[in-house]
Amino acid sequence: MTVVSPTSVVSVGADLFADAVAGQAVDVSRVEWRPPMPGTEADLATVAADPLRRDANERALAAMLGVTAHLVDVVPAANALGLEPGQFLHAGPPIAWARASGPLRGALMGGAALEGLVDDPDDAVALFESGRTVSLEPCHHRGAVGPMAGVVTPSMWMFVLEDLETGRRTHCSLNEGLGKVLRYGAYSPEVITRLRWMGDVLGPLLQAAVRATGPVDVTGILTQMLQMGDEAHNRNRAGTLMLLRDLAPAMVGTGHDGAAVAEALRFVGGNDHFFLNLAMPACKLALDAARGIEGSTMVVAMARNGTDFGIQVAGTGEEWFTGPAQLADGLFLGDYGPEDANPDIGDSAITETAGIGGFAMATAPAIVRFVGGTVPDALATTRRMHEITLGENPRWSVPVLDFQGTPSGIDVTRVCRTAILPQINTGMAGREAGVGQVGAGLVTPPSEIFPLALARLAELARARATA
Amino acid sequence: MTVVSPTSVVSVGADLFADAVAGQAVDVSRVEWRPPMPGTEADLATVAADPLRRDANERALAAMLGVTAHLVDVVPAANALGLEPGQFLHAGPPIAWARASGPLRGALMGGAALEGLVDDPDDAVALFESGRTVSLEPCHHRGAVGPMAGVVTPSMWMFVLEDLETGRRTHCSLNEGLGKVLRYGAYSPEVITRLRWMGDVLGPLLQAAVRATGPVDVTGILTQMLQMGDEAHNRNRAGTLMLLRDLAPAMVGTGHDGAAVAEALRFVGGNDHFFLNLAMPACKLALDAARGIEGSTMVVAMARNGTDFGIQVAGTGEEWFTGPAQLADGLFLGDYGPEDANPDIGDSAITETAGIGGFAMATAPAIVRFVGGTVPDALATTRRMHEITLGENPRWSVPVLDFQGTPSGIDVTRVCRTAILPQINTGMAGREAGVGQVGAGLVTPPSEIFPLALARLAELARARATA
Repeated sequence: MTVVSPTSVVSVGADLFADAVAGQAVDVSRVEWRPPMPGTEADLATVAADPLRRDANERALAAMLGVTAHLVDVVPAANALGLEPGQFLHAGPPIAWARASGPLRGALMGGAALEGLVDDPDDAVALFESGRTVSLEPCHHRGAVGPMAGVVTPSMWMFVLEDLETGRRTHCSLNEGLGKVLRYGAYSPEVITRLRWMGDVLGPLLQAAVRATGPVDVTGILTQMLQMGDEAHNRNRAGTLMLLRDLAPAMVGTGHDGAAVAEALRFVGGNDHFFLNLAMPACKLALDAARGIEGSTMVVAMARNGTDFGIQVAGTGEEWFTGPAQLADGLFLGDYGPEDANPDIGDSAITETAGIGGFAMATAPAIVRFVGGTVPDALATTRRMHEITLGENPRWSVPVLDFQGTPSGIDVTRVCRTAILPQINTGMAGREAGVGQVGAGLVTPPSEIFPLALARLAELARARATA
Repeated sequence: MTVVSPTSVVSVGADLFADAVAGQAVDVSRVEWRPPMPGTEADLATVAADPLRRDANERALAAMLGVTAHLVDVVPAANALGLEPGQFLHAGPPIAWARASGPLRGALMGGAALEGLVDDPDDAVALFESGRTVSLEPCHHRGAVGPMAGVVTPSMWMFVLEDLETGRRTHCSLNEGLGKVLRYGAYSPEVITRLRWMGDVLGPLLQAAVRATGPVDVTGILTQMLQMGDEAHNRNRAGTLMLLRDLAPAMVGTGHDGAAVAEALRFVGGNDHFFLNLAMPACKLALDAARGIEGSTMVVAMARNGTDFGIQVAGTGEEWFTGPAQLADGLFLGDYGPEDANPDIGDSAITETAGIGGFAMATAPAIVRFVGGTVPDALATTRRMHEITLGENPRWSVPVLDFQGTPSGIDVTRVCRTAILPQINTGMAGREAGVGQVGAGLVTPPSEIFPLALARLAELARARATA
């Protein structure tokens, strides 16, 4: 049923027409009709009745939206995170070598070679199988995020982002570009050589430039990007260019060799994804402000290790709710096909958790040429994500939706009640260690992790009610 | 009357709904109903019957769309254009000092001081009134275009754009930024000081960088910009950043003083409009390819001198068809209001002539915060411009309109038949010499110039028919 008048539309049922009209900034009132996820009715009722919920979610959303992330330094992970030889960080929830997917294994093997623990990355397999002198830990447990495999080793240089009001910090490695790169599980000599150049030349240059320039407002750059066709997960073109604009003058003035500066400018300028590694820790910095708020049903992290997809929720502490990572549906590079792709991997879904990436696809319609789908799909996706989020981000607006704020603060109860899953734009790694990137596409979390989180929220609410 | 089915829409009458649906890339068949411009019926019939017309317009459109513009050099106007002391170029059709508007006079006075013809810009009034040692000529008559007042003097450095296939070239000065700048009619000491720095430092640096980098594909950057929220007239953010990306490495490597390079990088990076002065000559280079095609009704230039708005047409040689420049409707800076604004000025409407600027507003919805209007207006404007153009540009597409090409090749007969005027996004200069920019907005040509051009096309067609 569809009723049309010049200024408002009521739409019940299929979303195609409602989304088309809403895409033109016409007021749309949707009438909910989807059944909740099976088996969640009782927990939904319990959590809905939790007296803490409303205020806790308001505080969680406000805490997230109130953070401004500044790039304040660039330093090796050993210094930034206290990472010691043999310690490896990885994307997603905790996982051991035995269950690690191909691309995570490949990145760990390359990381071991980079750190000089082995000469040949293939020799690292025995090292990780024995597990005696090495350890794996999620980036998220050390205040960091890592795209794709997300492997961080002590010698890798990290962006340091800070909330200047509180001094809280988050971290992310420097982006290597596309194709045969460590984060997609490649570990050939060219990968290691590039990482060494990043450590020897690029990192120190960026450190000098950031220290000379002073804090760079990453949240502000994200505001601009969203008006320039980037959704800040799989399109970071404008963001990368703005970072170059902000740092290039100081890079020139650092007293470094002109040829090295020119090479660094070319490397950053030639990698449209360079800014992703700033967008991600900016999103984590905002979301971390909402951690530990009792009663809040807001998701504060979505992360994948290539085997498991995990979420963390404001009201459930550091607990991970996990299920099997899914295969993305998308576009493949060269001759690669679905059979070559590893399940979903990376901490980069922190962008969607903060309301950009797949949640902001409407502002980046050109993204469909990279991740697949159609332009109307992209517009519809952003509208749909408003149905599972607590609010809008006034600083991150979507011009084509009449400057509506991005859908922000994924609410576990809304996901369970509507059965609408968060939409994630993602790169696809090859399933075999060493392959690298095979494509990019669209993916969702496994649906069962939201009822798991809801059940824990309900359990805590019941415990409070009877305390 | 509006009939809706899932995949196609027929709309007769008011455009609001049709445009809203079309904005979602649904097929729309519009039924023409607008009356033609009064008094044009006979000329429209004559030109429609011209046996040359169809083929001539196909050739004109193809010629324009086939050009790729490369930035190949940066040199002073004296060298690039053979401009001699006392010779001044200006925007728009020919005009003498006596009829020149405030901002054009202000820019000429500042230009005279820059060239050392007078010490105080105010002393230049007598010089231009006497007209003995100075002369005025349109930029367009020397293969150049100039934004706003468009004043070019021999010592100003010019971008040189070339069609590498034919060697044809066009030129434009370097952009000064916003506010108190010569092109908006300001001529205070800070304006002259900035112009001297541009001549002494910026121009030579850019020259060295372009020569070291090799030809920069400006048409290709425009393709990218249109996917990054720029319409390339009043938004050139992404374009400016891509130019920086392309030239910065060579600027570092030119052997110039690091502090000067850093200052130049800051100047370009701090001026979102810097790329406008490349977009404009790229558009002229494309449109010049369509000049002199007998029988073609395609517009090859729209330009304003602050007093007159003029167009040139492919099938009518170098003749200008002029009428009074209009006042823009838009947003004002600070305390300025409509009474402070000069009528429309500048060669920058060459962007709309080539199918971008106001014609591509749909791809730059954030522009409404600068020039006024609403996001649905911006989407509707691009759709409407398809009704007066000969075709689409496959290299310049609008993602949110499902990658439809920009409306390209303004057709004098379609303008007269539909009475739809080209939409131009423009800056607004203060009407008094010396003021500078007062705002930005939307404007159209005076409607009478299209019937004038049509009458001349009809006259030529009749002459051919009776020859």
